[in-house]
Amino acid sequence: MAAISSLSLKTPTKIQSLTKTHYAIPLNLPFSCRSKSKRTGSIGSRTRIRCGLLIEPDGGKLVELFVEESQRELKREDALKLPKIKLTKIDLEWVHVLSEGWASPLKGFMREDEFLQTLHFNSIRLEDGSVVNMSVPIVLAIDDSQKNLIGGSSSVALVDDENNPIAILSDIEIYKHNKEERIARTWGTTAPGLPYVDEAITHSGNWLIGGDLKVIDPVKYNDGLDRFRLSPAELRDEFTRRNADAVFAFQLRNPVHNGHALLMTDTRRRLLEMGYKNPVLLLHPLGGYTKADDVPLHWRMKQHEKVLEDGVLDPETTVVSIFPSPMHYAGPTEVQWHAKARINAGANFYIVGRDPAGMSHPLEKRDLYDADHGKKVLSMAPGLERLNILPFRVAAYDKTKNGMAFFDPSRPQDFIFISGTKVSISPLAFSIIPYVARIQHWCGSTVGESEQHKMRTLAKNKESPPDGFMCPGGWKVLVEYYDSLAAAENGRVAEPVPS
Amino acid sequence: MAAISSLSLKTPTKIQSLTKTHYAIPLNLPFSCRSKSKRTGSIGSRTRIRCGLLIEPDGGKLVELFVEESQRELKREDALKLPKIKLTKIDLEWVHVLSEGWASPLKGFMREDEFLQTLHFNSIRLEDGSVVNMSVPIVLAIDDSQKNLIGGSSSVALVDDENNPIAILSDIEIYKHNKEERIARTWGTTAPGLPYVDEAITHSGNWLIGGDLKVIDPVKYNDGLDRFRLSPAELRDEFTRRNADAVFAFQLRNPVHNGHALLMTDTRRRLLEMGYKNPVLLLHPLGGYTKADDVPLHWRMKQHEKVLEDGVLDPETTVVSIFPSPMHYAGPTEVQWHAKARINAGANFYIVGRDPAGMSHPLEKRDLYDADHGKKVLSMAPGLERLNILPFRVAAYDKTKNGMAFFDPSRPQDFIFISGTKVSISPLAFSIIPYVARIQHWCGSTVGESEQHKMRTLAKNKESPPDGFMCPGGWKVLVEYYDSLAAAENGRVAEPVPS
Repeated sequence: MAAISSLSLKTPTKIQSLTKTHYAIPLNLPFSCRSKSKRTGSIGSRTRIRCGLLIEPDGGKLVELFVEESQRELKREDALKLPKIKLTKIDLEWVHVLSEGWASPLKGFMREDEFLQTLHFNSIRLEDGSVVNMSVPIVLAIDDSQKNLIGGSSSVALVDDENNPIAILSDIEIYKHNKEERIARTWGTTAPGLPYVDEAITHSGNWLIGGDLKVIDPVKYNDGLDRFRLSPAELRDEFTRRNADAVFAFQLRNPVHNGHALLMTDTRRRLLEMGYKNPVLLLHPLGGYTKADDVPLHWRMKQHEKVLEDGVLDPETTVVSIFPSPMHYAGPTEVQWHAKARINAGANFYIVGRDPAGMSHPLEKRDLYDADHGKKVLSMAPGLERLNILPFRVAAYDKTKNGMAFFDPSRPQDFIFISGTKVSISPLAFSIIPYVARIQHWCGSTVGESEQHKMRTLAKNKESPPDGFMCPGGWKVLVEYYDSLAAAENGRVAEPVPS
Repeated sequence: MAAISSLSLKTPTKIQSLTKTHYAIPLNLPFSCRSKSKRTGSIGSRTRIRCGLLIEPDGGKLVELFVEESQRELKREDALKLPKIKLTKIDLEWVHVLSEGWASPLKGFMREDEFLQTLHFNSIRLEDGSVVNMSVPIVLAIDDSQKNLIGGSSSVALVDDENNPIAILSDIEIYKHNKEERIARTWGTTAPGLPYVDEAITHSGNWLIGGDLKVIDPVKYNDGLDRFRLSPAELRDEFTRRNADAVFAFQLRNPVHNGHALLMTDTRRRLLEMGYKNPVLLLHPLGGYTKADDVPLHWRMKQHEKVLEDGVLDPETTVVSIFPSPMHYAGPTEVQWHAKARINAGANFYIVGRDPAGMSHPLEKRDLYDADHGKKVLSMAPGLERLNILPFRVAAYDKTKNGMAFFDPSRPQDFIFISGTKVSISPLAFSIIPYVARIQHWCGSTVGESEQHKMRTLAKNKESPPDGFMCPGGWKVLVEYYDSLAAAENGRVAEPVPS
């Protein structure tokens, strides 16, 4: 993983000679937004921060929720004396998200006022009357026994599996967790089988606990990928260092293929045409909880590396990093969160795909969300007025180029669309639609069959994807992944992620 | 119905000598807000209207959607040539609501952009960037055959049961009606048994049709109550005529009892203390669709009349009128609509009860909404910042007064609360809680048993309500109503509403 390893070493280690790389250089630089820009206000003051030319964080200030290093031991001791709430894996991912300010200006797990505004308005009004977007509840559930344990304490310690204190939640508020209402308002359905609901809500406690969060040690997963998890502050620093005058974010939770690449490259071209001098791409795979049939993060990062090694994207203008949020699969509601979090990381352009954060309906033979609702809702969402939304353009297989191109209505005869194909759920799916007829078995499947399954079928049958779909190196990673899955299902041990 | 008949005669008829009346005097006056105030902009211009000291309508202008009288015959003929959409009873109520500007600045049934903003944000952003509240979808459903019938026409005629044209919807947009998502996001549940859903959504078409509405003739119901249905413009005129410098609205869909009266009287007292010189009460029973076990509008109006004849409220400072909206029973979502519509009618204060627009969960033994969520959501709702929210104060039975009074924490021993009683669903229920012990059978019932059932039980058993609960005349009307229900259920014909 040579290319990836040069991405984002957070502590100075052996610095490789940086040829052309797709990733950020090691972050042993002072934060540009704190020290370099004349327009920068001081952190901690009420002055609004401007990181060079970057978009302001929501609420005007990036809210990081770390205990100061000098106070860590003291806080750890304090935590040991407090009632303990054990965090699930997803809870910990939210602690990570909150601590780094992706949800700025949230100061911790939501209290009831924030929770209600999120459910009803997808936005939160601040004290100064301004509105920030907030569409997905970031809440911590506890059960009756935990509530009793807390008693009258105004603070609790959040601990890991081994009771190690991770964070302190103070000035707490405990309120009812109406799961049905939360699910209905977040997903627009209460059908059983929603992945995040099954994983994180159904069996969670009947109370929610909100409060001010302070994280004792920055969250690490020790999975070999921590170095790729840049915080919003670190990303802002990187964009500033690169003198970016526009940052366009691309959220993904699937392998990258050439349709994505076309889109990203073209977006930069359009931004240059608009007059920006140095637009930078934030290629930002989601790193938190995903459903079982999504390609795991490790394999995706490996695939991204191979794709990028092929030079499909320009490393000078691309930053690859991991977005630590868990995935809700809540369509138009969730895409707002994905966009809002990227504002906090400095992105002022957001590429939105077809049916973002969507999935098949768990019970009915249809997509859960209308494919256009994501971009429509995003374009109207309160608190996101500052963000430029870039919808996917329609791509098709251009016979004159033997490859993907944006559809040109002046010469429709040159393009092949596979008619009658209901496109399915992922951003990946979008660019697959218009491929050549020989892949009709790939695209012409019934609604609800995911691209993952299609890829798996191909890989299982040792077939190749259509020409121009994905670079061979990237495809090889996926074949290895699906092979390992098949092996595991045949009773053999799954192969480890290739290193 | 002597008192009521003097309320709001919209056309000059025999004018009774107006002694002290609880109702508005006949409205044969020019609209004050259109002709009297120096601050008034001209209707139809882009100038913002100010009706004296009244709060501005949402969007700055009250949007009435009537065809000009001189154009009516022409438009009627036009309508006959258009594809026809037959309106249900509830559709017609929404046409009424839209036509009079209760939903200003909506110009007709929602197009998809408005629908999506309503579902996701409970608010709509206007072209100038400002935000108005809009929490309940005001939509018109059509089925496949109606959609086919419309074909490529850009306008449709909305017709009644006998195919008489009621209105024209032009510049139409047809989009998918995802009922599950609409229900989940509006009610926070998809449980079967929601009254409005059963009545108006479940069996409705799979498409929604939005567009600009023009109503040919103002909607009338010919039920003897049309004269009490004042439009927002007419109410504004009435408030202006009375020189109201504050208008406080009280939404209800239940009989009025002395707890309500205490609250309304006390609100006026508080407004006077705040420095207002002439606060006027808008007592505003909901007149559209209600569920089967609510007291029908005719009986409620009769009951209100009797209660008001007893002089419980000051007629000089009270306007009684009918709010034509149908009822969703959507709790915190719907209370925003109830409040927003009253802004358009000139109210700048809104009294919010416990669990407004709430009901029992259709399947579970609990209230559908947290009793406090209505007022919390209302107080934070986008687009309602200009409205002053007045939460119900806690009332209790004051032994020193042998009647209802607001609870005084300095002398708790003087008040009786019936402990352990889970209050139930209606605003009416709120003031019942603290009654004397002899009515424990009234209050101590299980959650979900509605006040309607309790009243019915009392009436059936020829028992009287607790002293001070309701004036005898008002109670007598309810006894008659419940008697008529019992008679109907015994196979006899229900008694008509007493005239």
